[in-house]
Amino acid sequence: MTYPFFKPLRIIESSAFIAAPLAGLALAQFGADVIRIDMIGGGIDYGRMPRMPHHEGRGRSLYWTALNKGKRSVAIDLRTPEGRELIQALVTAPGPEAGVLLTNIGTPWLRHDLLASRRSDVITCTIQGNGDGSTAVDYTVNCATGYPAVTGGGSPEKPVNHVLPAWDIACAYQAAFAVAAAVDHRRRLGAGAELKLALSDMAFSTLSHLGLLAEAELLQQDRPSIGNHLYGAFGRDFGTVDGIRIMVAAISSGQWKALVRCCDLGESVAALQARMDLDFSDEAQRFEGRNAIADLIEPWFARRSLREAAMALDEHKVCWGQYRTVTDLLANDPRVNLTNPVFERMVTPGIGEHLSAGATVRASTMERKPTKPAPWLGTHTDEVLSEVLSLGSAEIGRLHDAGVVAGPELDPTAS
Amino acid sequence: MTYPFFKPLRIIESSAFIAAPLAGLALAQFGADVIRIDMIGGGIDYGRMPRMPHHEGRGRSLYWTALNKGKRSVAIDLRTPEGRELIQALVTAPGPEAGVLLTNIGTPWLRHDLLASRRSDVITCTIQGNGDGSTAVDYTVNCATGYPAVTGGGSPEKPVNHVLPAWDIACAYQAAFAVAAAVDHRRRLGAGAELKLALSDMAFSTLSHLGLLAEAELLQQDRPSIGNHLYGAFGRDFGTVDGIRIMVAAISSGQWKALVRCCDLGESVAALQARMDLDFSDEAQRFEGRNAIADLIEPWFARRSLREAAMALDEHKVCWGQYRTVTDLLANDPRVNLTNPVFERMVTPGIGEHLSAGATVRASTMERKPTKPAPWLGTHTDEVLSEVLSLGSAEIGRLHDAGVVAGPELDPTAS
Repeated sequence: MTYPFFKPLRIIESSAFIAAPLAGLALAQFGADVIRIDMIGGGIDYGRMPRMPHHEGRGRSLYWTALNKGKRSVAIDLRTPEGRELIQALVTAPGPEAGVLLTNIGTPWLRHDLLASRRSDVITCTIQGNGDGSTAVDYTVNCATGYPAVTGGGSPEKPVNHVLPAWDIACAYQAAFAVAAAVDHRRRLGAGAELKLALSDMAFSTLSHLGLLAEAELLQQDRPSIGNHLYGAFGRDFGTVDGIRIMVAAISSGQWKALVRCCDLGESVAALQARMDLDFSDEAQRFEGRNAIADLIEPWFARRSLREAAMALDEHKVCWGQYRTVTDLLANDPRVNLTNPVFERMVTPGIGEHLSAGATVRASTMERKPTKPAPWLGTHTDEVLSEVLSLGSAEIGRLHDAGVVAGPELDPTAS
Repeated sequence: MTYPFFKPLRIIESSAFIAAPLAGLALAQFGADVIRIDMIGGGIDYGRMPRMPHHEGRGRSLYWTALNKGKRSVAIDLRTPEGRELIQALVTAPGPEAGVLLTNIGTPWLRHDLLASRRSDVITCTIQGNGDGSTAVDYTVNCATGYPAVTGGGSPEKPVNHVLPAWDIACAYQAAFAVAAAVDHRRRLGAGAELKLALSDMAFSTLSHLGLLAEAELLQQDRPSIGNHLYGAFGRDFGTVDGIRIMVAAISSGQWKALVRCCDLGESVAALQARMDLDFSDEAQRFEGRNAIADLIEPWFARRSLREAAMALDEHKVCWGQYRTVTDLLANDPRVNLTNPVFERMVTPGIGEHLSAGATVRASTMERKPTKPAPWLGTHTDEVLSEVLSLGSAEIGRLHDAGVVAGPELDPTAS
C-alpha cells in the first residue's frame, strides 16, 4: 500500500543493491514518483538471488523486484555521454517537485556541483561505502562494529556474522529521512542540499547512539559474549517439550513480574536473590543473575507444549515470541497475511502473484492505494523522456536507434 | 554535529528504550527542537545498562545519555491528570512548527483523536510492538523472522540471536522519515496525520522488501544456514597468520576479479570451474561453489600477516574489512575519531568527556553545530513550560509544589 504524502515529488534513483533502492522504495510508498535508472540490460544487482527458476537462462530476481516495486524504470546506456546527459537532465528538470537525486553510484557525472550548476536548488543524496568514497559493503563494515565478536557465543578469533544486512537497512531509512528533511527545507527556504551518507558511518554512529562507543572509551570494556541472552536485563530462549524454541524478554520490571508469576517462581526467585545477594527488581542485577534465573525457568518450558506455554504466557502478559523459519512465519503467523493492512497481494511480471508489504507505517487518516509491482526494466523509458524532458517521438526513436536508451525487455517467460 | 534542516520544528517525545528515542535523536540532529518528556525520576529506560560506576547508588546510563543527546528534558508526573493535561497542551500548542508527537507509550491520553480534537492538524507518530497494540520487543520479533534459524550455523532447533537491535534501529529511522513526510505534507496541504508503526511490521515488511517472503511463498524455500558465508555471491571470513580475522566480499564481478587477481588464483579458479562445471563470473554460481572457492583462498591468508594481506588487498582493490571489538575499533580504526566529520568530542553531565557521533548524514552545503549532550532529567522543565505554554513563574511554582513537574535532578556525582 502507498500513501500520497509526497505526491507528486519526483526522485531520480540511480542505484544498486539494498540501501539506495530501499530508500527509494520508502519514498515511493509514501507517494513519491521514483524513477529508477538502470543500465540497459540491468545493473549489477539485476540478477541477484533468489531468482525464479527458468527453463533456459536465469529467472527473474525476487530480490530486485522486491526492492523496486512502486517505481518507474528507465533503461539508459550509462557509459555514453548522451546517456549521462539524459540522466543529468532528468535530475535537474524544473519544478518545485523535481530536482532530487538518490544514488549509491559514485560517478563523477552525478557529482553535486555539476548538477547544481544546472539547477542551483538540486538535492542529491549519495550513499557511500566509506566517507572517503572507498568501497565497503554491509559485511565488510559489520565485521568492524564488534557485533560478530559477541554474537552467538562468538569471539574475536571466531566471529559470527549475522545474516540480516542491518546497516544497509538503517542506511536506507536514514537516507529517505534525509531526503525528506532536505525537501522540507527547500520548500521553506529555497536551498538545495548535498547529502552524503556512508554505510560505515551508519554503523559506527549507531555504536555511539547505543552507548557502546562511550562504554569502550570510558569504561574500557567490550560487551560480553552471552549467546542468546539479551544484554542488560533478563531474556533468553527456551525449549518446549514439543521441540519449539521460544524467546522470552523481561526488560521492564512489569515484564519481569509477569514472567515470575507465569512460571510460579515467586518463592524460588526470592530464595535465589537471597543466596546471590541480588535484587532482581533491578534490571542490572537480573542481568547479573541471568544464568541462575534461566536454570529456574527452563524446566517450566520443558514440561509444556507450545500450546500450553503460549496460553499461560499470554494470560500473564509475558513478553515472548516463537522462533520460526520464513516459510513457517508465512504459513502460521497471523501478522503476515491480508488481515494485516500492511500486506497486500501483488502480481509481479515474470514472477507471479505473491504477498507483499506496502508502506510499513499505517496512516489512518489518509487514503491508501495498492503498490504497483516492479516493472520490467525500461518499461517507462519513453513515457519518462516524453513527460519529464518533453522529448518528441522522433527524438526518442533516434535515442533508441543509437542504443542510448531501451524500452521494456520482452518477458522471456511469455515466449 | 547537527544541521538546521528542521529548525525550528518542535517535536514532543514521550518515549522509552531505543526506537522512539533514536527517531527523536535523528530529528534533533537535523535541527528539530525535540523535547523529551519523562516521568519524574526517570522512565523505565533511565537506568539501562551500561552505566557509569558510582560509589553509592547507580551511575548514569551511557545508553540513555547516548540516545537523548541534543534534546531538551522535561520531567512530569505522568500519572496525574494535571501532568497529562500539560503534555497534551505541549503537543497541541499552536504554530506551524509545533503540533508533532513522537511516542512509543500507547496510553489512552496520548490518543490521536483526543489530540486532534484540540489541534486538528496534529501529527502523531506512535511506535508499537505489534500492530494490534500488543507488546513486542526487538528480541521477541526477531525470533519470528527466520534470521536466528540461519545465523551462525544455527537451526530452528538451535537458533542464534543476533546482538544488534536491528529492528529498533530500522523502526527509528522509518519513524523519523514518516514524521518528516507528514510535516512536508502538512506544510503543503494543511492536514495532520496519525502515523502508526509496529516493530513486527518493520521486521516482516523487510522480509518482503528483500525477497525472502516471496521466496518462501513461490519457491517454498528458506535460506540455508551458511555460517559466515554471504548469501547469493561469494564472501567469507579468513584468518591471517597473526590470528586476525578478515571479511572478504566478492559480490560484484569487479570485486570477484580483484580477489582472484590479488590471491593469484587465476589458474586454480579456472581448473575449479572446469571440474565443477560452474562459471564463477555468475554470482549465483560463485555462491554454489563457495566452499571450494574458500578452500582455495584460505592458504593465501594463512601465510600472510594482517599487514601483508592488507597491503595486497588494498593494492588490488579487494572489498574487505577487519573484524574488531569496539575497544579495538575506537583505538585503531581511522574512521572513528575526529578526522571523521561525523564525530565530535562531547562532555555529558554526570559522565564526562567522550567521543560521540553527530548526524550520520553529512550536508556539505549547510552550517553544522556541535550536538548538545543529553541533559539531566528535567533540566528544561521550567523553560519549556514558560516558552511553549506561556506559564508564569507563580503557576510553574505551584506545579512544582504540587509534585506535577520537577526541575533538574541534582548531580549525584557533584556532592
